Amino acid sequence: MAQKGGAPFLLSLFMFLSMLSSLCDCHPHPVQSMSSMAAVRAVSNHTTKKASDIAAEVAGYADVAKQIIDLAVFGAAQNRSYRRLAHFTDTIGNRVSGSQNLEMAIKYMYKAITQDGLDVHLEPVKIPHWVRGKESAEMTVPRAKNLAILGLGSSVGTPPEGIEAEVLVVESFEELNRRASEAVGRIVVFNQPFVSYGETVAYRAFGASEAAKVGAVATLIRSITPFSINSPHTGWQDYKDGVKRIPTACITVEDAELMWRMAQRGQRIVVRLTMGAKTLPDADSFNTVVEIKGWQHPEQVVLLSGHLDSWDVGQGAMDDGGGAMISWEALSLIKDLGLRPRRTLRTVLWTAEEQGGVGAQQYFNIHKVNLSNFDLVMESDLGTFAPMALQFTGSEAARKVMEEVVKLLAPINTTKLETHGEGTDISPWMQSGVPGASLHVADSRYFWFHHSEGDTMMVQDPQDMNLCSALWAVVAYVVADLEDMLPRKPLD
Amino acid sequence: MAQKGGAPFLLSLFMFLSMLSSLCDCHPHPVQSMSSMAAVRAVSNHTTKKASDIAAEVAGYADVAKQIIDLAVFGAAQNRSYRRLAHFTDTIGNRVSGSQNLEMAIKYMYKAITQDGLDVHLEPVKIPHWVRGKESAEMTVPRAKNLAILGLGSSVGTPPEGIEAEVLVVESFEELNRRASEAVGRIVVFNQPFVSYGETVAYRAFGASEAAKVGAVATLIRSITPFSINSPHTGWQDYKDGVKRIPTACITVEDAELMWRMAQRGQRIVVRLTMGAKTLPDADSFNTVVEIKGWQHPEQVVLLSGHLDSWDVGQGAMDDGGGAMISWEALSLIKDLGLRPRRTLRTVLWTAEEQGGVGAQQYFNIHKVNLSNFDLVMESDLGTFAPMALQFTGSEAARKVMEEVVKLLAPINTTKLETHGEGTDISPWMQSGVPGASLHVADSRYFWFHHSEGDTMMVQDPQDMNLCSALWAVVAYVVADLEDMLPRKPLD
Repeated sequence: MAQKGGAPFLLSLFMFLSMLSSLCDCHPHPVQSMSSMAAVRAVSNHTTKKASDIAAEVAGYADVAKQIIDLAVFGAAQNRSYRRLAHFTDTIGNRVSGSQNLEMAIKYMYKAITQDGLDVHLEPVKIPHWVRGKESAEMTVPRAKNLAILGLGSSVGTPPEGIEAEVLVVESFEELNRRASEAVGRIVVFNQPFVSYGETVAYRAFGASEAAKVGAVATLIRSITPFSINSPHTGWQDYKDGVKRIPTACITVEDAELMWRMAQRGQRIVVRLTMGAKTLPDADSFNTVVEIKGWQHPEQVVLLSGHLDSWDVGQGAMDDGGGAMISWEALSLIKDLGLRPRRTLRTVLWTAEEQGGVGAQQYFNIHKVNLSNFDLVMESDLGTFAPMALQFTGSEAARKVMEEVVKLLAPINTTKLETHGEGTDISPWMQSGVPGASLHVADSRYFWFHHSEGDTMMVQDPQDMNLCSALWAVVAYVVADLEDMLPRKPLD
Repeated sequence: MAQKGGAPFLLSLFMFLSMLSSLCDCHPHPVQSMSSMAAVRAVSNHTTKKASDIAAEVAGYADVAKQIIDLAVFGAAQNRSYRRLAHFTDTIGNRVSGSQNLEMAIKYMYKAITQDGLDVHLEPVKIPHWVRGKESAEMTVPRAKNLAILGLGSSVGTPPEGIEAEVLVVESFEELNRRASEAVGRIVVFNQPFVSYGETVAYRAFGASEAAKVGAVATLIRSITPFSINSPHTGWQDYKDGVKRIPTACITVEDAELMWRMAQRGQRIVVRLTMGAKTLPDADSFNTVVEIKGWQHPEQVVLLSGHLDSWDVGQGAMDDGGGAMISWEALSLIKDLGLRPRRTLRTVLWTAEEQGGVGAQQYFNIHKVNLSNFDLVMESDLGTFAPMALQFTGSEAARKVMEEVVKLLAPINTTKLETHGEGTDISPWMQSGVPGASLHVADSRYFWFHHSEGDTMMVQDPQDMNLCSALWAVVAYVVADLEDMLPRKPLD
């Protein structure tokens, strides 16, 4: 996942390219078309349906849910999503927006999903192309010490000879502003405490512009993590319009604390920072779209998703290779069982999520014309560790349906439905009233590895991924096959 | 701490240099001399003492133990050992054997302890001088990937252009020998599972020679740790006599697993390794010795210790800055309270522990002539996290005394006495029958940071260090002040 409220991008318009739109032939039902108006009728029909009827209807899926779970957790598909993820990330490595690796990753997935027998097509997206270049930092005073750094996405570089300047260490934006006069000509080191990712990421996102406003020449920001083994973490950052763009990188928690202690002792600190970072013209990329067409309402969609891109460190296994893999795996499981729901199941593997949900935003811009046909949008981008719950955002009536749906997950003991799901990539849909669901996993260590060299296959567990895949497939299939779409509040 | 059973070294003879041997003047009792024979008499007297008498004698120290604890944990000395450690490691950084940093560290401590008002002198030691040089490793096939490495202490370097060779990945020495014919001309990657440090460290210590025996050109060994954020760990290694010396380094757990998965898939892997490591002539160094002379039996010694050297990564705060600091702090606490025990309290800050307990071995060689006067040898080299217990090695009669002593630690709830203490630096004494004690702390994460860039002040906690210091001081003082030395079995 990237920061919340990522950077808005002006993105060029693109053409919809449906490379493969033929229906899969795994189900005997003929395709039936249904207008948007009919969908709206379905919505209003649903709202009048009695709770007991809904419960009975959903309970009717107990056997099929059991089949999906058996296949994913104990059957032939056991450990498949893990193996797929390992092969993918071992072969491609990390996949930052604009890189050749991301291009290779999309080709790899297109081929692999096609070989899996699923329909896949690519939808073009223009994406940012920032390159890290060579980078280093060294404390030169009071003693020589290399600082492990990772430049932040969208940062400018330094002059080739680097920037050498005295350091001002602050613990908050408030302290920076209070000591503004001391920041002029300095490298500002932010040693903010980690409170939560959502709160603390503001230092990574806005630290450079806030420091530049008061005359700093560069910023080094304590990595946004509660735990570190001297590991720098990267991520996106936003320059403010009209403010000088200064180089910005994350340092380790350890080095931020070290310089803070030295500053507390009144010691003068000097750092030399060299960054070869630059932004190239936008690159061509694709969202990768996989479908099992609905037999009754093919124009109605349950959307599952994760993002294929990652940062340019580690393997991008956790963020978000796992989410992408279980979103593919869910459709594989349903196909393997010869199932085909009433509505279309559509997996979208987003591109350039880390640059502010770029692929997902473009997808929304193009497809929002069919907003009323989007039944449920699902995103997995907080890891695929042991599943804890499904997070759900939607109307009360929709929640009542979802409460029944998650009961089908009793065989894997993940029947919890939580409120207020998150998800960078599905948020435009949720903000427009489409019900949304996010996977909540045992993520207590997620930010230890996030956007760092530590995001590798080592943090993934095959059995956890089996459980995530089963949950993902059951929820998607059942919602896509219910008589009615999930009820939502009338659209504005 | 270094590996158990470290490398034996042929060390040049050295002169004992007592730079400051005057008695501290903090106690009114005159010094009294006592022959070794008298000490042996004390031992035999003690063995006949009734258990109830010993219990009563030790219980008499409850007030003084309380004073020490109060000073260390709640009083003026609160957080002092932490502050001392932070200032020391922030100022000096890491301190590998033979480095200028280690020389600076010894000078720093000599000055700081003198300013603290304690008697300190230096005893010269010849120590190994291995330098890392520039080093890097890159997987070139099946795809380009940098590998984070740390060359191992005593390793030879590669030719300047590096070594590029195909990789053989094995999970054990047994597999290496079974596949010996495949190792010829290869870089052997050991991907041994982590069982325990004591068991698994054999791969780091002996991997190079074992691989060289079957024709390998270099070895890359999975770091000896149960947890990793892509963090390589260094440490000492031993070349076997008569076996070709090949370059050897540790890689991360993640990269070892990556190459293992690739090998399992039948993929060909090629790595280029470049190491500038070399061994220079032995360097001059010192054990740092701090004393509070005993008023009654100054020739009898309770020895406290930790080591001042570290590896050349991180800050060496945990391994073993903390152990060194609490061993100094214990004497500071006793001095600050105006206490002076019957026997001499001697803190020794070893040099070159990481190279196989070099400073400690030389100390033993010189001082073993006074073996019968060593009452108790103590070592803290497994971290100074929250104290859990005192590990004790000695006769049953001595254990009974120590069981009474640790009861004095009830105010800080660390009254546990465990058997079979460890300690690289005190093991020669324990093997010769001298009672030994090691500090056992909450060390479940110790090897996450050990010998890596993660060994910094971030892993230390001031309150934990207060507790360790209090425990260390109470045990040392009380044992040094009891009427009799700890009973031991008759010496061979």
